[in-house]
Amino acid sequence: MTERTELRRIPDRSVTDRDAIHAVLDEGLLAHVGLIAGGPAGGDAAHPVVIPMLYARDGERLYLHGSPASRLLRTAKKGAEVCVTVTLLDALVLARSGLHHSMNYRSVVVMGTAVEVTDADEKVAALDRIVDHTIPGRVAAVRPARESEVRATTVLVLPLDECSMKVRTGPPIDDDEDMDEDAWAGLIPIGVAVGEPVPDDDTGDDPVPDHVADWARGPGRANGRAV
Amino acid sequence: MTERTELRRIPDRSVTDRDAIHAVLDEGLLAHVGLIAGGPAGGDAAHPVVIPMLYARDGERLYLHGSPASRLLRTAKKGAEVCVTVTLLDALVLARSGLHHSMNYRSVVVMGTAVEVTDADEKVAALDRIVDHTIPGRVAAVRPARESEVRATTVLVLPLDECSMKVRTGPPIDDDEDMDEDAWAGLIPIGVAVGEPVPDDDTGDDPVPDHVADWARGPGRANGRAV
Repeated sequence: MTERTELRRIPDRSVTDRDAIHAVLDEGLLAHVGLIAGGPAGGDAAHPVVIPMLYARDGERLYLHGSPASRLLRTAKKGAEVCVTVTLLDALVLARSGLHHSMNYRSVVVMGTAVEVTDADEKVAALDRIVDHTIPGRVAAVRPARESEVRATTVLVLPLDECSMKVRTGPPIDDDEDMDEDAWAGLIPIGVAVGEPVPDDDTGDDPVPDHVADWARGPGRANGRAV
Repeated sequence: MTERTELRRIPDRSVTDRDAIHAVLDEGLLAHVGLIAGGPAGGDAAHPVVIPMLYARDGERLYLHGSPASRLLRTAKKGAEVCVTVTLLDALVLARSGLHHSMNYRSVVVMGTAVEVTDADEKVAALDRIVDHTIPGRVAAVRPARESEVRATTVLVLPLDECSMKVRTGPPIDDDEDMDEDAWAGLIPIGVAVGEPVPDDDTGDDPVPDHVADWARGPGRANGRAV
């Protein structure tokens, strides 16, 4: 963690535990990736752009994936700095006054310079990692990627050197003078709801494999059970 | 929509329908807000920062809310450009090859210059809107905000002039030569799982009010029912 990712506002919501940061990155499905577009090199003024992307963590590295035609990946390939944010929403926090309403969440921010993965073996391993991050066990269930497919895909890697985490947990925090207000206060827990798998037409009556059925049992997920 | 928010990569995933854009912004709970920090005015090099924030839409305006001490809001107050992205995840898309895996999602990107709301009445209305956006009916159930609270809060407004939407729906799209692969393919639907409300200690045995119980019936939510 460097100075600029230290949390200035609410220090007690900051978490520096490496395992906790890894756990959020591993539980998340989408990252919101920001970069600076335009500017001196581009045709218009510099402006921030934030897009949702698939990703996976491998040790202290974060891999990002997309088509080489993607503007974000093209810009980042040139060495632009990125900010990758993964947020897990755990509950709505209902206080006795409007301004003390909040959310319980876990959020990790990773900043740094993403570079393109050019080594073919690392690229295949990173792509497999992204598929298995989203659906554990999936890589073993599908054919290996073809060389031509791997060539046509861009993978970026970002070290987890500069990262920080914010967490809010627990009940609402109201002003003392509001504790007698006649307003219900508490939490609405939130998780990821998982529906019944929908087979593709050509999959027909093939039974749903374990790795697909098991997905609903991942962290933070609820499938007809309490969040 | 201006040139720089036009979608370059997959035009058929672009949606320009105003109502569809509004619907995503209204269904979302968190926005990921990006801005450029540092640079000539700051002490370090310009870099993107992305943080999760509460927000609400009012017509063609987007309100963002936080403590005035928040670095993001302080920077944006000076007139920095922001990029606000709201993403709703609808399904995992399991294809017959790793690289054709995808997600069904709806994502809206709003770019522009956010300015501080200084008019007291607009500020109160915006804060109410943010609370009721998150939990419809909540504003009527809690005491009105105090003047001192409103003064201590920063609200930013961003016009919806420059916004775009990307959508992926439907089954996996595989290469023709993969259609005979022995791999289950299809969708895992995803929504927001809602747990039983957890009353705060001082709320005691007060019954859960309708606006709290009803929250689980909002768009994209599943509470013991199919996604």
